[in-house]
Amino acid sequence: MEERKKTNIILFSGDYDKAMAAFIIANGAAAYDHDVTIFATFWGLNAFRKDEKMNVEKGKMEKMFGKMMPRGAENMGLSNMNFAGMGPKMIKKVMKKHQAMPLSDLIEMAQEQEVNMVACTMTMDLLGLQKEELIDGLEYGGVAAYLAEAEDGQVNLFI
Amino acid sequence: MEERKKTNIILFSGDYDKAMAAFIIANGAAAYDHDVTIFATFWGLNAFRKDEKMNVEKGKMEKMFGKMMPRGAENMGLSNMNFAGMGPKMIKKVMKKHQAMPLSDLIEMAQEQEVNMVACTMTMDLLGLQKEELIDGLEYGGVAAYLAEAEDGQVNLFI
Amino acid sequence: MEERKKTNIILFSGDYDKAMAAFIIANGAAAYDHDVTIFATFWGLNAFRKDEKMNVEKGKMEKMFGKMMPRGAENMGLSNMNFAGMGPKMIKKVMKKHQAMPLSDLIEMAQEQEVNMVACTMTMDLLGLQKEELIDGLEYGGVAAYLAEAEDGQVNLFI
Repeated sequence: MEERKKTNIILFSGDYDKAMAAFIIANGAAAYDHDVTIFATFWGLNAFRKDEKMNVEKGKMEKMFGKMMPRGAENMGLSNMNFAGMGPKMIKKVMKKHQAMPLSDLIEMAQEQEVNMVACTMTMDLLGLQKEELIDGLEYGGVAAYLAEAEDGQVNLFI
Repeated sequence: MEERKKTNIILFSGDYDKAMAAFIIANGAAAYDHDVTIFATFWGLNAFRKDEKMNVEKGKMEKMFGKMMPRGAENMGLSNMNFAGMGPKMIKKVMKKHQAMPLSDLIEMAQEQEVNMVACTMTMDLLGLQKEELIDGLEYGGVAAYLAEAEDGQVNLFI
Repeated sequence: MEERKKTNIILFSGDYDKAMAAFIIANGAAAYDHDVTIFATFWGLNAFRKDEKMNVEKGKMEKMFGKMMPRGAENMGLSNMNFAGMGPKMIKKVMKKHQAMPLSDLIEMAQEQEVNMVACTMTMDLLGLQKEELIDGLEYGGVAAYLAEAEDGQVNLFI
């Protein structure tokens, strides 16, 4: 029996468009029967935040980061032509017209296709993000977990 | 006979310097006898726009995107030190002095070296870009076309 | 005897957080017995600048670039939430609190773990950076040096 191929994506970016690219590739690879993992680190973790405010104990600094960073996929900005928030609205309007899936649906689809989603614990620690603030169904790990997958991967990307 | 190696680059970025990096690697890999593919998606597609305005029918939103996005390689900005357009001029001046190829020449060289250039049809649809507005010699495809190449690739990069 | 695996990272970005990610992955891969190479190109070269001003002869343009670009790892900005320099200070404060290594320590650790660090000579030429301005222990090369490593790499990333 042939071994399944592996796609491993590090999602570092907190931009809506880059996260879309990551999840479109992840969903495509899953449809092609790859084992797919998305490791969200640094600003990429924002895609996994819940959109409501959770009641968790935090330090002052961590509270500030929590406030300044977008809460969840649909609140992220664009890497380009963001225009103080106008850009994302325009893109989403155009996406709706062309029946393209919004990021939150792409993430849901990835979960249905059993894409592994790993939240970087080092970043969670640094930015003061707690498990209660992130969506369900995530795994938790660090650079070792990433490398264990990536060294056997066919498609390894940093986004 | 040994199989040829494969380099596959996703060009997501619409920055002049990042696109330069993509095409320098692509041309290098082609010179090393790799089969090379550049998949331009999202803002990366701007590198493949013609620099003149084409007469094509468009919706209002698509017209706006078309106007706001740079028309072709030499009109793109920098990822860093762009200084409202001053940066690209400075870089190009310095490039000329050191006889480095401008991006438009790097793209032409890639075409001469038979680098496959694929324009992402999903992005074209979203941003309202039509074939007539893009340079000649492109192929057209989506995430499936990318994965078919990338899963056998030695060098897979997301730029 | 099994061959050692290879991790090759192109560090294009001049952002503190992205360079941190690059060196965390590099150090992790070295700990996993990979042969690891970091190719610093374009703005990524700033991570390898010495933090003091060196006395070297330069053209006018090259002097200007030298002045505008950050001198060394600890003077780089963030890719996100930079807030005119406030962001890096906040991140470093939070990193200290959580005993995370600053970028300059991550680079030193990489050198101790024998990560190959290659400075892109084409960029040095363009931006007018000279060997005297960069930290010790670097190698120097171009796209050919990169591809020679990358075509046998298991983990190839563009950051």
